[in-house]
This record gives sequence, structure tokens and C-alpha cells, in this order.
Amino acid sequence: MQFAQRLDNVETSAIRELFKLLGKPGIISFAGGFPDSAMFDVEGIREASAKALAEDPGAALQYGATEGFNPLREQLAAFMVEKMKSTGAQVTPEGLIVTTGSQQALDLLGKTLVDPGAKVIVEAPTFLATIQCFRLYGAQVIGAPIDAQGVQVDQLEALIAEHKPRFVYLIPTFGNPSGATLSLERRKRILELAVKTQTVVIEDDPYGDLYFGEAPPPSLLALTAQVPGSRDWLVHCGSLSKVLSPGLRVGWMIAPPALLAKATMCKQFSDAHTSTFAQATATQYLKAGRMPGTLARVRTVYAERAQAMGESLKKELGDAIEFTQPGGGLFFWARLTGAGGKLKDANELAKRAIEKGVAFVPGAPFFATNPDVSALRLSFATVGVEKIREGVERLGKAI
Amino acid sequence: MQFAQRLDNVETSAIRELFKLLGKPGIISFAGGFPDSAMFDVEGIREASAKALAEDPGAALQYGATEGFNPLREQLAAFMVEKMKSTGAQVTPEGLIVTTGSQQALDLLGKTLVDPGAKVIVEAPTFLATIQCFRLYGAQVIGAPIDAQGVQVDQLEALIAEHKPRFVYLIPTFGNPSGATLSLERRKRILELAVKTQTVVIEDDPYGDLYFGEAPPPSLLALTAQVPGSRDWLVHCGSLSKVLSPGLRVGWMIAPPALLAKATMCKQFSDAHTSTFAQATATQYLKAGRMPGTLARVRTVYAERAQAMGESLKKELGDAIEFTQPGGGLFFWARLTGAGGKLKDANELAKRAIEKGVAFVPGAPFFATNPDVSALRLSFATVGVEKIREGVERLGKAI
Repeated sequence: MQFAQRLDNVETSAIRELFKLLGKPGIISFAGGFPDSAMFDVEGIREASAKALAEDPGAALQYGATEGFNPLREQLAAFMVEKMKSTGAQVTPEGLIVTTGSQQALDLLGKTLVDPGAKVIVEAPTFLATIQCFRLYGAQVIGAPIDAQGVQVDQLEALIAEHKPRFVYLIPTFGNPSGATLSLERRKRILELAVKTQTVVIEDDPYGDLYFGEAPPPSLLALTAQVPGSRDWLVHCGSLSKVLSPGLRVGWMIAPPALLAKATMCKQFSDAHTSTFAQATATQYLKAGRMPGTLARVRTVYAERAQAMGESLKKELGDAIEFTQPGGGLFFWARLTGAGGKLKDANELAKRAIEKGVAFVPGAPFFATNPDVSALRLSFATVGVEKIREGVERLGKAI
Repeated sequence: MQFAQRLDNVETSAIRELFKLLGKPGIISFAGGFPDSAMFDVEGIREASAKALAEDPGAALQYGATEGFNPLREQLAAFMVEKMKSTGAQVTPEGLIVTTGSQQALDLLGKTLVDPGAKVIVEAPTFLATIQCFRLYGAQVIGAPIDAQGVQVDQLEALIAEHKPRFVYLIPTFGNPSGATLSLERRKRILELAVKTQTVVIEDDPYGDLYFGEAPPPSLLALTAQVPGSRDWLVHCGSLSKVLSPGLRVGWMIAPPALLAKATMCKQFSDAHTSTFAQATATQYLKAGRMPGTLARVRTVYAERAQAMGESLKKELGDAIEFTQPGGGLFFWARLTGAGGKLKDANELAKRAIEKGVAFVPGAPFFATNPDVSALRLSFATVGVEKIREGVERLGKAI
């Protein structure tokens, strides 16, 4: 059987091999990228689903428009406008489409914008499935360096000038895997850069609502209201996966009209539309006004866990590791320093850690180019505070 | 903004323009390809959904395996094995993956098997979204002629020899738009041809369960048990959309292991996985044993409507139209004969029909090559018997 050449662009993930080991009994796992299912608002979703089937079962179970279920588009537009009230940026229901999780938004952007050999710029490091998704469309994926303040704009500008990419893909707020948040000043500079260089900027924002203390700076989308012309170059991807439930597979994409129309056409032939049953359920959930309460609860729990992890890492690993305490999201991103002759290779540490009963993800695969083998990603989201302490203790022994 | 060149392969559908007119009040529409939402088993789906959330809410709302929710894979495998008991063909849960509707199965097959410029063979006519889906991956789509017994195998053999296609895509049972069903003898010959020419054959089977009287011949998948080596070349796509609910977006694909693994990898970057909420609901529905009753009810209603449409077409249009009475599915496929100097152009008739208050879809866009402008597709699925008679009467006036 002859397979398409595009499959040669993607190697099977090194992480997959590691995940196979996670089944070992007693392992404490910091390896996932999941929200904690114990925190799902099951009762709220049950009520929303029952209401969707009671109010208009025909609509909830029938084929729907590729663009999305209109009542959901209305709820999502209102949700976004409320989030952006500090800048007054607007979104209409027609200005967004519903996607099957934000992973599908990435796929549609690849399909719509990437020709084989075309270049795209991502953060180094970035979400692994993003790199693979764009490579399947033949993209040459180039990494732009980041620090604790997010992508370094001078370097990004130079890379744009050099490579003339089809787009720049960023997770500006509580990035995966970096946990980094782009500063307000850099956000504005990036929007100006998009206008100046006529480059599409994709803002993937699944974690922005998961802040622990102070809210992060307004999203790039929100800030387009302050940078003339920038809205014409900005794509924003949102998702209910991290804040409500990944199992619904409800995401959305906001983009300039021409791009949104092309992406909709592509979506028609990708999956016709996102599950109307899931969309109608999400609609009723948002309508019921439960989201603010759910967000508050989730933020509190993740904040405690993040604090516990930060404290434990300092206590157990000391100067053998360096990291910035994340202000939100699901992840710690850390580097092994090699101090005191300790291990500097995160792949090696991952193997030893599994033996000691704790798992995390080595950082190298998150780089499209020039992997940093000393980096690692730790998620605190699905592990209780006591287990976090125990897991980090094991990590201390492994190193 | 620069879009990918693959978008140039797809023209916006002529049918879309027609669909815009369907909003006109009082129109009787035979244009849809939908099941009738009045026949959805809402109570059964409500119960299934509640049970899924009660039994294991964490699983129903969390991220899931890309291959599909295991309990659903088990139910679907059992469902398929039961359907194939006449030949004894087997499917294990590991032998299928869950897709976001069968539209996604087509998309994954395009992504996995089609290089730009590669050739694929489809029935002429075939499902419109199939042609567009494969063209988006750069396929050159070639039509193989059909008659009332499905695709003409001699001609198909010649086309395979000439074009060496990546695959042959067929809707062998109650085809869309043709309504045709491939004969048992042709089914076996196609499987032999697949083995002989080492050509992948895709069987898309959304309608096979919707038969009115006698059951259709066993599926190609079922018949692989009787044609040595053919299972290695056969892909089968199934769906709950036409028999239970399109809004769930639950389809499945059965394929040789190497292809299934590649398709799973592609799906990981397309939408991560199909909604676990919808999958868990479908699981409980199948487990509850409601499917046989639902199928029996749906078959009875569609059978009455198909009979009414056939009778009315003969009565109102006489020898101005020719068609084969379908034995199942959702569609009549007909040709304008021009007898008695009547209209032969289905596009023209569609316009006049809208003026008289009835809609259908002209057949030309369903051909990848050499469109037949005298052809038209009429769906009886969503219109009651009385309205079918009234609609066909209007059609008689329009012609």
C-alpha cells in the first residue's frame, strides 16, 4: 500500500514511548496535559445536556451548519466580548466558527494557509501537536526563542524578515509547554509587527482563563482594538477543553472574514460540522451562567497545586533545576542546570524518574528546531497537593 | 493574505446557491440529504447520555484515545459482526477507529493516501463532498460509470489499469446520489479485482441498514470472508448519522492495520479524538439494545415515503422522467428524458421548480467528470407522504 508523502514529514512521537510506561502501578504522573476530571462540573453538564434535548431535540441531534450551531456562536461571542471589555474589542457570532476542539482549528489553518515547503514560525518550545499538524501540510516549522516574558520580539522580527512565513503561531498566555506569558509591551509590538510585515499571527489561547492571581494582559485579540489594522492579521483560537471539558471537543476560531470563509469550506470536508449534541450542550451550559463559578473553582485548585509544586521543586531539587513560577495554566517548564555535577539530560532523568515512580515529559520534542535536552515539562493539574510533594521528592531522588 | 494552492482545486458548490432559495416559505424540499429529525429516538439518546454521565463522568468528559472510546469500539465491533453473520466476517475493537462522522473518515483517507496529482476513482455520480474532500488533497478524481446494479466492473477494471489509482471509492449500497445497489456478483468481482490489481477499495456504507424490503447483499467487508486476500485491500466506513443521529458525529473506519495506524496518527493532529461525550452516549445507546427497534421504525417510514414518491413520479411526470425504484436509503436518482418535448435540463427544471414551490438537487455536480445535465436527485426522507404527493405534483407542473 502506497501512503502519501506528507506522512514522511512526521516522526512518531518520542513521548509516546514514555507514555507507555505510565501504566506502571503507583506512578505519580506530571506528564499529562489534561485538566483534572475530578473538577468537571458534571451536574452542570448533565443539566445542560438534558435541557438541550428537551428544548430542541431536532436541532441538537440533526446535521448542523459547518460554521457552528448559531446559539453557541452567540454565547461564545458574548463570552469573548465580556473577556475583552478592558479594551472594548468586539466579536460577532458571524465572526467566529466552532471547531472540533482547538486542535481542529490548527488543522484548518494548516489546510487553508500552508503549501508544501512554506515556512511557519512557532515559539521554541511550543505545543508538540502543533508542530506535527503543520508539518503534515508540508510546512517547514521554524522556532523563535522565548524567555519568561514569552517570544523575543526582536528575534521574531528578524525571523519574519528572513523567512517570510505564512504565519506566526503563538500561545501567548501560560504557554504549553513553557508556562510563559507574553508581556503587554511585547503583545503590542507583535501586533504592530503583524501589520508592518503583513503577517498572519495565530493566537492559541486555551489557558488564558486559568490564572492564579492577577489576570494576564489582554489577549492579542483584545489588543487589536488598540493597534490599527492588526485585526486584519490576527487569528484567535479558543477552547472549552481546559476550563470545562475536553470531551465535548468544542473550540472556536476568530479570524478575518476571507480566512474564516476558507476555513469553513475546509471544515465542510473535514467533518461536516462539530457535534451539534456537544454544541447544544455547551450552549445551555454557557446560558445557565455557570462558567464564572466553574472558572473560579478551577483557578483556586490549580493555584494551590502550582504553589505546592514550585515549593517542592525548590526544596527537593535546589539549584539542580531552574524555572519561573507560572502565573496560570497547567505547566511548569524547567531546565536542569547540572549544578553540583547533577544530571543535565532530561531524557535520562525521565528514565530514572520512572524507576523511582514519577513521570514527566522531557522538553526536547517541543522544539521544532534546536532542541534543549536539559528542558522538561511538569504538569501539576491532575495531582493533589500531597501527591505533588511526594512526586517531587521522588524526582529529587532520581536526580 | 496568501492561501494554500490546494484551495484552488475546489470550486464553491453550485448547490449552495440553490440551497439559499430553500428558505422561501412554503417550499417542499426534496433537496436535503438528511434523515428526518422527527424520527430521532430522543428518549433513548437522553437516557443513554444520562447513563454515560452517571456511570463514568470522568471518562465521558475527559480527553480520550485518538482511536476512539474503547467501550464504543467494542459495541461497534459487535454491531458489525452481527450484521455480517451471513458470511462470518470478523471485526475486533482494535480493527476499527471512531471518526467524527464518516466525513472525517474520508478526510483521513485523503490525508493518508493522496499525494497531489494522484488519481482516485469514484462512481459517476458520487457523493459531492467526497469529490471535494479528495480534491483538497490534490487528487485527480476520475468517475467510473454506474447503472442500476452499481458500478460497471468491466469499465472499472479498465480504468484501474489505465490510471493506477490510489484507491477506488464506492457507496455500494443505496448510493448517494444514485440510490443504486451493487449486485452480489459485482461485489465479489470487485474484491477479486482489488486483490489482482493490489488496489485499495473504500466502501462507504452509511445507508446499508436502511432497506425497505429484502436486505441488500452483504457488504464488501462481509464478503472479504469469501474472497481470499481481499481484506488486505478493503476499507469500510460506517456511521450512526443516517440511522440514529447525525448530530452525534459518530462514524467508524475499518481498515488493514498499517492504514489504520497511519489514519490514527493523522486524526491525532486533525481533532485529537471524536467527542468522548458523544461516544459515551452512543455506547450506552447501543448497549441498551435500542438499535434494532429504531432501525425497524425508520425503515418502515422511509419505505412508505419512497413508495409514495415512486408512484407520484410515475403519475405526475410519466415518460418525461426515468428512474429505478430504490430498495433503501434516502434518494431517488432520475433522468429527464425530454419525451413529448419536455425539459431535459435539470438545472433549468430546478429553477422552475423553486418557482412552483418544490426543490430538488440537479445531478450534474455529483459527477467528478462528464456531468449528466439531465440527472436529478430527489430525497423523500424528510417529507411526509401527503407532502411528497403535493411536491411531485408541483414538479409535474414545473416540467
